[in-house]
Amino acid sequence: MNRDVSRPHVVILGGGFGGLWATGALAHAPVRVTLIDRANHHVFQPLLYQVAGATLSGPDIAAPLRHIVRHQVNVTVWMEDVTAIDIGAQRVSAGAQTIAYDYLIVATGSTHAYFGHDAWAEHAPGLKTMDDALTIRRRILSAFEAAEREPDADKRAEWLTFVIAGAGPTGVELAGTLAEIAHHTLPHEFRIAHPRRAHIHLVEAGPRVLSAMPEKLSAIAQHKLQRMGVEVHTRAAVTGIDAGGVNMGDRRIPARTVLWAAGVAASPLGAQLGGERDRAGRVKVAPDLSLPDHPEIFVIGDLAWVEQDGQRVPGMAPAAKQMGTHAARVIRDRIVGRSTRAFRYRDFGSLASISRSSAVVDLHGLEFSGFAGWLFWLFAHIFFLIGFRNRLAVMWNWAWSYLTWQRGARIIVGGRKHKD
Amino acid sequence: MNRDVSRPHVVILGGGFGGLWATGALAHAPVRVTLIDRANHHVFQPLLYQVAGATLSGPDIAAPLRHIVRHQVNVTVWMEDVTAIDIGAQRVSAGAQTIAYDYLIVATGSTHAYFGHDAWAEHAPGLKTMDDALTIRRRILSAFEAAEREPDADKRAEWLTFVIAGAGPTGVELAGTLAEIAHHTLPHEFRIAHPRRAHIHLVEAGPRVLSAMPEKLSAIAQHKLQRMGVEVHTRAAVTGIDAGGVNMGDRRIPARTVLWAAGVAASPLGAQLGGERDRAGRVKVAPDLSLPDHPEIFVIGDLAWVEQDGQRVPGMAPAAKQMGTHAARVIRDRIVGRSTRAFRYRDFGSLASISRSSAVVDLHGLEFSGFAGWLFWLFAHIFFLIGFRNRLAVMWNWAWSYLTWQRGARIIVGGRKHKD
Repeated sequence: MNRDVSRPHVVILGGGFGGLWATGALAHAPVRVTLIDRANHHVFQPLLYQVAGATLSGPDIAAPLRHIVRHQVNVTVWMEDVTAIDIGAQRVSAGAQTIAYDYLIVATGSTHAYFGHDAWAEHAPGLKTMDDALTIRRRILSAFEAAEREPDADKRAEWLTFVIAGAGPTGVELAGTLAEIAHHTLPHEFRIAHPRRAHIHLVEAGPRVLSAMPEKLSAIAQHKLQRMGVEVHTRAAVTGIDAGGVNMGDRRIPARTVLWAAGVAASPLGAQLGGERDRAGRVKVAPDLSLPDHPEIFVIGDLAWVEQDGQRVPGMAPAAKQMGTHAARVIRDRIVGRSTRAFRYRDFGSLASISRSSAVVDLHGLEFSGFAGWLFWLFAHIFFLIGFRNRLAVMWNWAWSYLTWQRGARIIVGGRKHKD
Repeated sequence: MNRDVSRPHVVILGGGFGGLWATGALAHAPVRVTLIDRANHHVFQPLLYQVAGATLSGPDIAAPLRHIVRHQVNVTVWMEDVTAIDIGAQRVSAGAQTIAYDYLIVATGSTHAYFGHDAWAEHAPGLKTMDDALTIRRRILSAFEAAEREPDADKRAEWLTFVIAGAGPTGVELAGTLAEIAHHTLPHEFRIAHPRRAHIHLVEAGPRVLSAMPEKLSAIAQHKLQRMGVEVHTRAAVTGIDAGGVNMGDRRIPARTVLWAAGVAASPLGAQLGGERDRAGRVKVAPDLSLPDHPEIFVIGDLAWVEQDGQRVPGMAPAAKQMGTHAARVIRDRIVGRSTRAFRYRDFGSLASISRSSAVVDLHGLEFSGFAGWLFWLFAHIFFLIGFRNRLAVMWNWAWSYLTWQRGARIIVGGRKHKD
């Protein structure tokens, strides 16, 4: 029954928050669902920086997609790269095969963008996928190892200098994590390099950190970062990145480790859908999240360009989940001939963690920070994490890190060693 | 004081059981110690197969070397590849630098050997390092994913066929793990492929599995594996491995996933020490574990060829630890002019796990198996695991897996996808 080919076939591209919530909302609909992702797992992106920072291991914040939807008998999961969408013939190319759809939900999210400087990518990895997180972890830990065996003091200082480009939530979280690693986790374990002497630069082109938050919270976050030893540079645009450092106009910071949290571009699949797109490649959708000329195609999550009350709906997990649920509801309504409703984003606010006991929280009307903000941040993340096992594993690792200042996943795997 | 250059410099190559135990035994000796490993972490090798089998995550069974020895002020840890040993000039080449030593302990272990068929390596990964474990995990999980999207039934069957070459402890443990994954963890999550139809072949050239154990325990292990659905082939030598399967003389098993647990070769650094070596490249040592012509050089662990009472000391963790402790003691004795003793291996026995509730244990005089054996196995491994955090993490993951049949680390990371 579950594979009944007389039922409409809904193909969902991407197993992030948008795709997964759309899948779940089709559980009892009279459709067949195929969920396709290039990874075999869903990642809880808000905690990805903690995998990069070696506090959590990858499996703590990920779960196999087919395990999550195992009880949903109308769903087939495919791990495959989708390379093309043929909107005329209504089919997608996945690996060597083509799959016909009646409805298509495109939820392939976004990737890093280097403002046209693709050569920067090699020197400044971004943080979007589990593999990205493991790459950043490897670079950070390897830099301290390289410093320890570097006989030249100037070169050693370059290995102990870290630059994070972009001071949105990800940049702020990475900077705070790096400061904790250098100043609390690693001292006493090195004999030649001194992790406490590490320099951590957070570089932001705009006038303040966390620019999407109220100014008061931005100021609190910046002050807290500076007290932790992070050097915050605002109104400072990155103009060059190479293997030896970062240029900001006339100024150069010699650094062997650069992390990119500055720009995102929509998934390249968006370009195959025709229609209007914004500068970052996001696809303009109709009020019900379908394509204006193709009511059978929906675009949701970070890939969608949705405006509401004159404002852009942000690329955040809650927005992606709400869009996923909405697209599924529109499909259910269409099938039974009900009229469909326009999407309305419910904005509950946003939050960002700065350190092990400090976060900023903006609930639109209620703003708080410091330890209370951190407790709120902590419970919110545990609550939204998928899976009982993951929740317990994350709580246990956090408790251990909190008590010992240690990190449970300080191992370097994969890739060649990061060396000169 | 800790870096007092007037003290003899002991350089230890390799942070496995041998090198780490040697380091620890030099804690209060009047020496400087440099411990060099190409990884930043020690791996608890006896549980590596559980990382490959997705029960445990990598960090659960690993700890940063410099964290383990952080309180030992006379030790410097270097993460670096050692490429050459100059025994005349008494120095080693590590990366771009050379390091002079007064005493050298070589504990670089062993790697896989394909009996001269290097082309097999690509198709049949072995299990020695954390990266190996993640590679095997990726291949196993990806094979089931490939089967799910394969439209052709014959090709699908090839994706669902697994061959393990070699039925020592590692081969037996991998076969048991694969049987549990296929028959218990994955069913109900696939719609087209049926993991329960997977074929798992364990191929052994010798007459029985676990040949180092008493015959009775071998028979019990083989019977248990067969009851779990593993097809055990004894007296069956692998004569060819390619991308599509395995040849055993005239017989061929079409299979897309082959794992290698059949042969080991000593670390190539052994060849730079001169002197006598066995067929696998192990270095013959004097009774005190030093080189016959170079009393300042010690070879320990899997790299050492040590005979005792006419028998080869086996390449196992307890033997490596005992050798590490002994080499350190000889160095301490030499420094104060005391006469040195010959190494004596104390053989406490061996054990191998077969499934989630079955293991075989040989304590020389006391043999047992089944659930009692498994409980013994379980407590022995928890006891010997390094670090409080790792012990709790492993216990928690085991308890969860035992209750749910699930595995906590079923995520595919790194590498390109394993596909046709």
